[in-house]
Amino acid sequence: MTALGHLINGARVDRQGRSQDLYNPSTGEVKGQVSLASKATVEEAIAAAQAAFPAWRNTPPAKRARVMFRFKQLLEEHAEEIVRLIGEEHGKISHDAQGELARGIENVEYACGAPELLKGEHSKNTGPGIDSWSEHQPLGVVAGITPFNFPAMVPLWMYPMAIACGNTFVLKPSERDPTSALFIAELALEAGLPAGVLNVVNGDKEAVDTLLDDARVQAVSFVGSTPIAEYIYSRASANGKRCQALGGAKNHAIVMPDADMENVVNSLTGAAFGSSGERCMALSVAVAVGDEAADTLIAKMQESMATLKVGPFSDKSNDFGPVITKAHQEKVCGYIASAAEQGATLVVDGRDVQVEGYEGGFYVGGTLIDNVTPEMTCYREEIFGPVLLVMRVDSMEEAMRLIDEHEYGNGTCIYTRDGEAARYFSDNILVGMVGINVPLPVPVSYHSFGGWKRSLFGDLSAYGPDAVRFYTRRKTVTQRWPSAGVREGVQFSFPS
Amino acid sequence: MTALGHLINGARVDRQGRSQDLYNPSTGEVKGQVSLASKATVEEAIAAAQAAFPAWRNTPPAKRARVMFRFKQLLEEHAEEIVRLIGEEHGKISHDAQGELARGIENVEYACGAPELLKGEHSKNTGPGIDSWSEHQPLGVVAGITPFNFPAMVPLWMYPMAIACGNTFVLKPSERDPTSALFIAELALEAGLPAGVLNVVNGDKEAVDTLLDDARVQAVSFVGSTPIAEYIYSRASANGKRCQALGGAKNHAIVMPDADMENVVNSLTGAAFGSSGERCMALSVAVAVGDEAADTLIAKMQESMATLKVGPFSDKSNDFGPVITKAHQEKVCGYIASAAEQGATLVVDGRDVQVEGYEGGFYVGGTLIDNVTPEMTCYREEIFGPVLLVMRVDSMEEAMRLIDEHEYGNGTCIYTRDGEAARYFSDNILVGMVGINVPLPVPVSYHSFGGWKRSLFGDLSAYGPDAVRFYTRRKTVTQRWPSAGVREGVQFSFPS
Amino acid sequence: MTALGHLINGARVDRQGRSQDLYNPSTGEVKGQVSLASKATVEEAIAAAQAAFPAWRNTPPAKRARVMFRFKQLLEEHAEEIVRLIGEEHGKISHDAQGELARGIENVEYACGAPELLKGEHSKNTGPGIDSWSEHQPLGVVAGITPFNFPAMVPLWMYPMAIACGNTFVLKPSERDPTSALFIAELALEAGLPAGVLNVVNGDKEAVDTLLDDARVQAVSFVGSTPIAEYIYSRASANGKRCQALGGAKNHAIVMPDADMENVVNSLTGAAFGSSGERCMALSVAVAVGDEAADTLIAKMQESMATLKVGPFSDKSNDFGPVITKAHQEKVCGYIASAAEQGATLVVDGRDVQVEGYEGGFYVGGTLIDNVTPEMTCYREEIFGPVLLVMRVDSMEEAMRLIDEHEYGNGTCIYTRDGEAARYFSDNILVGMVGINVPLPVPVSYHSFGGWKRSLFGDLSAYGPDAVRFYTRRKTVTQRWPSAGVREGVQFSFPS
Amino acid sequence: MTALGHLINGARVDRQGRSQDLYNPSTGEVKGQVSLASKATVEEAIAAAQAAFPAWRNTPPAKRARVMFRFKQLLEEHAEEIVRLIGEEHGKISHDAQGELARGIENVEYACGAPELLKGEHSKNTGPGIDSWSEHQPLGVVAGITPFNFPAMVPLWMYPMAIACGNTFVLKPSERDPTSALFIAELALEAGLPAGVLNVVNGDKEAVDTLLDDARVQAVSFVGSTPIAEYIYSRASANGKRCQALGGAKNHAIVMPDADMENVVNSLTGAAFGSSGERCMALSVAVAVGDEAADTLIAKMQESMATLKVGPFSDKSNDFGPVITKAHQEKVCGYIASAAEQGATLVVDGRDVQVEGYEGGFYVGGTLIDNVTPEMTCYREEIFGPVLLVMRVDSMEEAMRLIDEHEYGNGTCIYTRDGEAARYFSDNILVGMVGINVPLPVPVSYHSFGGWKRSLFGDLSAYGPDAVRFYTRRKTVTQRWPSAGVREGVQFSFPS
Repeated sequence: MTALGHLINGARVDRQGRSQDLYNPSTGEVKGQVSLASKATVEEAIAAAQAAFPAWRNTPPAKRARVMFRFKQLLEEHAEEIVRLIGEEHGKISHDAQGELARGIENVEYACGAPELLKGEHSKNTGPGIDSWSEHQPLGVVAGITPFNFPAMVPLWMYPMAIACGNTFVLKPSERDPTSALFIAELALEAGLPAGVLNVVNGDKEAVDTLLDDARVQAVSFVGSTPIAEYIYSRASANGKRCQALGGAKNHAIVMPDADMENVVNSLTGAAFGSSGERCMALSVAVAVGDEAADTLIAKMQESMATLKVGPFSDKSNDFGPVITKAHQEKVCGYIASAAEQGATLVVDGRDVQVEGYEGGFYVGGTLIDNVTPEMTCYREEIFGPVLLVMRVDSMEEAMRLIDEHEYGNGTCIYTRDGEAARYFSDNILVGMVGINVPLPVPVSYHSFGGWKRSLFGDLSAYGPDAVRFYTRRKTVTQRWPSAGVREGVQFSFPS
Repeated sequence: MTALGHLINGARVDRQGRSQDLYNPSTGEVKGQVSLASKATVEEAIAAAQAAFPAWRNTPPAKRARVMFRFKQLLEEHAEEIVRLIGEEHGKISHDAQGELARGIENVEYACGAPELLKGEHSKNTGPGIDSWSEHQPLGVVAGITPFNFPAMVPLWMYPMAIACGNTFVLKPSERDPTSALFIAELALEAGLPAGVLNVVNGDKEAVDTLLDDARVQAVSFVGSTPIAEYIYSRASANGKRCQALGGAKNHAIVMPDADMENVVNSLTGAAFGSSGERCMALSVAVAVGDEAADTLIAKMQESMATLKVGPFSDKSNDFGPVITKAHQEKVCGYIASAAEQGATLVVDGRDVQVEGYEGGFYVGGTLIDNVTPEMTCYREEIFGPVLLVMRVDSMEEAMRLIDEHEYGNGTCIYTRDGEAARYFSDNILVGMVGINVPLPVPVSYHSFGGWKRSLFGDLSAYGPDAVRFYTRRKTVTQRWPSAGVREGVQFSFPS
Repeated sequence: MTALGHLINGARVDRQGRSQDLYNPSTGEVKGQVSLASKATVEEAIAAAQAAFPAWRNTPPAKRARVMFRFKQLLEEHAEEIVRLIGEEHGKISHDAQGELARGIENVEYACGAPELLKGEHSKNTGPGIDSWSEHQPLGVVAGITPFNFPAMVPLWMYPMAIACGNTFVLKPSERDPTSALFIAELALEAGLPAGVLNVVNGDKEAVDTLLDDARVQAVSFVGSTPIAEYIYSRASANGKRCQALGGAKNHAIVMPDADMENVVNSLTGAAFGSSGERCMALSVAVAVGDEAADTLIAKMQESMATLKVGPFSDKSNDFGPVITKAHQEKVCGYIASAAEQGATLVVDGRDVQVEGYEGGFYVGGTLIDNVTPEMTCYREEIFGPVLLVMRVDSMEEAMRLIDEHEYGNGTCIYTRDGEAARYFSDNILVGMVGINVPLPVPVSYHSFGGWKRSLFGDLSAYGPDAVRFYTRRKTVTQRWPSAGVREGVQFSFPS
Repeated sequence: MTALGHLINGARVDRQGRSQDLYNPSTGEVKGQVSLASKATVEEAIAAAQAAFPAWRNTPPAKRARVMFRFKQLLEEHAEEIVRLIGEEHGKISHDAQGELARGIENVEYACGAPELLKGEHSKNTGPGIDSWSEHQPLGVVAGITPFNFPAMVPLWMYPMAIACGNTFVLKPSERDPTSALFIAELALEAGLPAGVLNVVNGDKEAVDTLLDDARVQAVSFVGSTPIAEYIYSRASANGKRCQALGGAKNHAIVMPDADMENVVNSLTGAAFGSSGERCMALSVAVAVGDEAADTLIAKMQESMATLKVGPFSDKSNDFGPVITKAHQEKVCGYIASAAEQGATLVVDGRDVQVEGYEGGFYVGGTLIDNVTPEMTCYREEIFGPVLLVMRVDSMEEAMRLIDEHEYGNGTCIYTRDGEAARYFSDNILVGMVGINVPLPVPVSYHSFGGWKRSLFGDLSAYGPDAVRFYTRRKTVTQRWPSAGVREGVQFSFPS
């Protein structure tokens, strides 16, 4: 069995060396191996990207965008295969993987607009006979380091726009489910990217550190957990690189007494348990305002959860699949246990879920925990599993205080019919992405994705308009054409 | 003699403690003292800013901008006094200080446009019945740390926009010439800023480190030398703060054979020696393409420099004044000496300049050095004095290679009449601010200021449009109002 | 008694000829006379504007904006005098005139941002080695024709931005209350506009037609009644001019059953009767959904109206003043009479209002009419008086249908607490300016003002971002610098 | 032989009635017939568009854009067939038709960015607790009337963006070469446009007038000759419609003495004779500065033109093909004759060109006329044939005066190496589209196309950013959610 290698300078290569197992989490079985790039291999990829940069930078933006148009088309044509590759290694059900891919494709669509998005600002007569304009020039080689939970989508948040802006790219996907990313990158080459413009290296910390330290890499985009994000950000920054590092989350939904409770339950069920809760935008805490709302919520959630179907990715009738690894399955179950120990009420306990024929899979069933309080471990940390916590408060202000005091500030939402409540909430809450009756307020591809507090390190958000700014460097030109024959006096003062 | 204190929560205060001397560099005499804030004093300022934030954040942008309109008016009314304060501590001649102030006021003018600049993006129907929009919300308390060479202007690059965006501010001006900054900040309060919105602390490393470490400070803007910029950037970044840190420069002008040589000499004389060369945009290296251009340049520069008049700030007929300190005077002279030792030709040597009646002043005369080569100390380092180096190359490509290989990338310019040369240069040169026949390509206030390479640490440039992005945080709201009575199905997949 | 003349080429002039009386509507007395410009006089103003154009066009935008900064300052310093001039000829109470002036000044503030607003779009490499950019160049001489009801504000909607964009201007204010406009224009000159950049001609149809027909006038902005707006638009358009012509209105407020009725009554009272209803954004129709809402509304409005105080402009305790002319007073009373005749219920009848000591003034008291139906004259036409009509419907849909079927589409609002109702209303209603719990949804100066249907003729709205587009013409430059020595092949095909 | 019918509500229909012949201009033979829609048929199309509007308007912009992505793909797949259809009826050679199609597709690409382009502006706190935002809402049914010379491209300037903005469309292509437009519209339906969103009617003045007069049509885009453009604009405007009408041109190139003459001749040959000069951006006048430049230009043009190959569209080795009709062939020859009669020098006379085997085709050979003066008929009018006029002037100023005094102001260019000349020219010339060393300065699809003077009637240019503004109507929403329990005071004054 050959290990999954790398994509460097337009070709699949393997440079031998270290490797590790790839699992199918639906069965719990090893399905293959992935190479772990050495420093030298990563440097080979960086060198390829560096070599490809000058010509790609000078390719007109409209021609670069045209590659993205073809790339979108190829992604659509190969959607079924991509969905299968995602499912095999990540475990998510096909309808969910399709959603992921569709969101990824939307980022490619946005990158097709590069000629518009790259426009600089032109000012006539900034002084007498002087014009100035700004250009958004590409940086050079940029790197992306992406997580297991959206193996296809998160890379597509990054390199389509980076490349459309004129940069060249080295991607290091998650070593747990890298196959779809590699497959998709090959489609990008097929769409017309010159060799070296997009490279993929599989690897672990050695690869990551090489990307963080190599002087040729101008910028790093990262999505993952907060401790790693912080590490990435501070190391890349210390090396003088531009960096954006997205970390963890604990997303709360406030359920107001006037909320439409059917809608709350329907949307929360999907937002909490979809993709087994392994989403940085998963809704993992419901904060009910008033016991009446809380009791209704608990009752209806129990009812809704009774029909939840957990199982392997290959069966479309399942609502969600396994978690990513055995270790993670145990960690999630540990959080559930701790909740009970620390005094919360386990309303629905998903720890003992059995999936017939897939007993080795890493399954955790949908779990509902009531009476959670702020000091509990299950609340303080990100669980990243199909677990919904319910907290009870007396007022909207109290609910908002809870959210503001949590270390993360990725997403949040409120359920209400009241315009005033919605506006007060969205204005004041210390969270970057806010939903009003929208449980997963993931911005569409033409807005940008970014949490606050310890959910994002860096100035600029991911994808959308901010990506154009992140992947380009401002150059300002000031131009004057002196009249032949006309002489200006010496000027010692600072021009006013 | 009382030491110059701080401006905290709307009032001038002094908290005793450490202080240091303030000099008048034109005479070399001590003119007073400045307090050096302790950690506790800086924390007091931060606390005042923090307390002022909620109300200021909720003040409509148009009302915040209206304070800026009044501020501009007050700055104009007090221009003469400000110019004098600058001159006394910095030494620059009044025409030059007026230019500095005028550029500062332009940044206030730009901040008057905050209501326009703060507009977010609104999208109807990002999904069926779903709307999304972005808001640029203020960060909270932000800090600015500014250099001696533009004591009035650089603070005005920062806080007018920061404050117009809804933040509150703590400024630490240079401890060598802080008086004008303090005076100007009082005008901002007089213009209508509520107490605590703008605070000024004088100090040294203790004050700086407090600003870098205090968790309440959300962002730091810095302008100074590259080693300090790097320190500021990495410490602020490691503390999870947003940071932009502008460092040193070595700005080259390419003199093409087709350049209008009168214009070159006139504009270079001002750009090299104005403000004694103590500008991060000073033109300190002229790269002549071809010996004919070089010889003409040297001859005409000598002639032009013969009439240069150096002396105290108080005499308007002077072209430029002293450098900032005795130590800096010695350092500049050391660079000149090293050039001669390392083989360059001292065409005009300004080391022995005598200013009658001001023998104690820190003067260095205009200096012209020919035959400079890349390995010389005077070329590798930033001199920050009235010294113009001339280098000789055979082609425009060679000149560009010199520039690209230097560690700094702040500003540069080319002198030519040829459209092709201008376009090739501005497109390819690895420098952030480019002039075509413009020796000091400082962007106007409605563009942004930012160098490349080791001249700027951070993603976003100073002032102009980038400042709006630096001083605000993106929040994206996604809103849906469910139809009463209409129920949506449970959705487990990631929405596509 | 000298007639009020014109402001041409920097000086007050009178060219004799026709004139007409100016009234003080608070007393009903003649207060002076205004000259009516002949064709020759208007052409003199156009010629002055034409002569001033080349130099003004080449003045850097930042310097043009600086005149606007000074203009704002002068307007604030002379506010009291302007308010009095407005009151004497228009009759509005000082607090109302102050509001008008403040909104006018906001447009000057917006024009101060011209350097930012005039930025064009710059694209690098639109083809290999080809760059393109757009410039927003001024048009030349533009004209403004303004109505009596906002004698100070509407001219300030127009010329500050037109002039900041580099145009020169001829204003023809209303001949009923021209004094404040003339006074304000003189302040603009005092602020630094060169002679000829802003000219004011008083006059009637002869002046208007001259402006519409003269080939040197590039664009016309108009605000007034719909029949005149239509005339202006078609004549200017037929003459090849750019034109925006704002006409009449009939602004409806929907009062939903869940509305906060105290707020409704408070805000409606001001919006319906303020400035005697002589505002194109006056709220003149309240559409109550359900009889309960209607009955409450009527009862509370009656109560609120009992304390309304009508009287001369000079007494600040008055809520509103007279209407503009005797003829208009009679016309408004005629509408009230017709309502009664056609079957509506006169709840409060303002026809017989008596103002002691001002018996000759053109007063109409606040009037409330219930049970109005769509075919009534008082509903079909714009009354422009202190008359609030109440209509009763059974559903929000029915209320919206009423609004959509009316010929005007200027402003509208809804009172509700419900997010869904607000969004459905604002999305679907065929009206250009929509308020949610805001009775007068006049956009702030940094958005644009424009009705739909027969309330606006033209593509672009007044003031705000649209004004920049209206007062400039796009020029697109495509630039390539061929390499010396490199030859391109003949190209017969359309470049792709 | 069936006449070519219409595309209404998703299906090809013919409604009998009038028709006219379609020619193959390469052979001069009738190749078919086209139906001429009656008023009733056009109204049927309008009704279909009107019926399709509500659902299309509410389709999220991203989904509308996705149809454009598929449309682009289909256009590329059917390029060969489209090129043939263009050639058969218009006569242009395949390489030229490919260029046309490619430029058309670029407009589809731009429309794919609709979600980004439709963003409105959102302002928080325009007043205390008040937010405002703008929406760019679609207009409803819009119409396009397009010329024969770019039968595929000009329709694609219009409806992709109109439709992506949410409008529905009725296209009336030129009745001389309508087949490609109809074929392409069917591809748009195949790409996913719902029936009725895009309709095509063939016809003549009856169809045009119906579109101009029908109250359901909200806007009209036109491209054609100036007299018709003026008619369209004034009739549509009088009917209260939004209109942009692009007319004729007379595009001058200034040839400066420092121009690279090889490049001038190569690019002028294509720009003057490509597509037989039947382009509104054809370069039809070369203005040489100085006799030396003129003599060189004439000599080299003669040489270059010696190898020009004229013939049928089907032979790719031809440089250009026939003109559109027999009548037009005679008209062009008449202009050539008049030039000789009025004193110009016929350097190369294309009147007697013979194309073997295609004697009936409407051919005119490349023609070069020297010593043209401003009063000659051939200069005053648009020839729209393969005729290049040469004028001789003494200075750049004189050349610019010629251009500025011509009634048209579509495109122009200058050939020079000098930065000052280029900047002075592009700044001052009264022409909307300016080239620097670019003979056909057609803006790319992400900029906008618009001439000045009598080359464009209307405020907004075609395609690019302006198209978004033309095809949408601004709605401004101002929203406030009153605090329950908080009451505001009555406000009579205009809010400040």
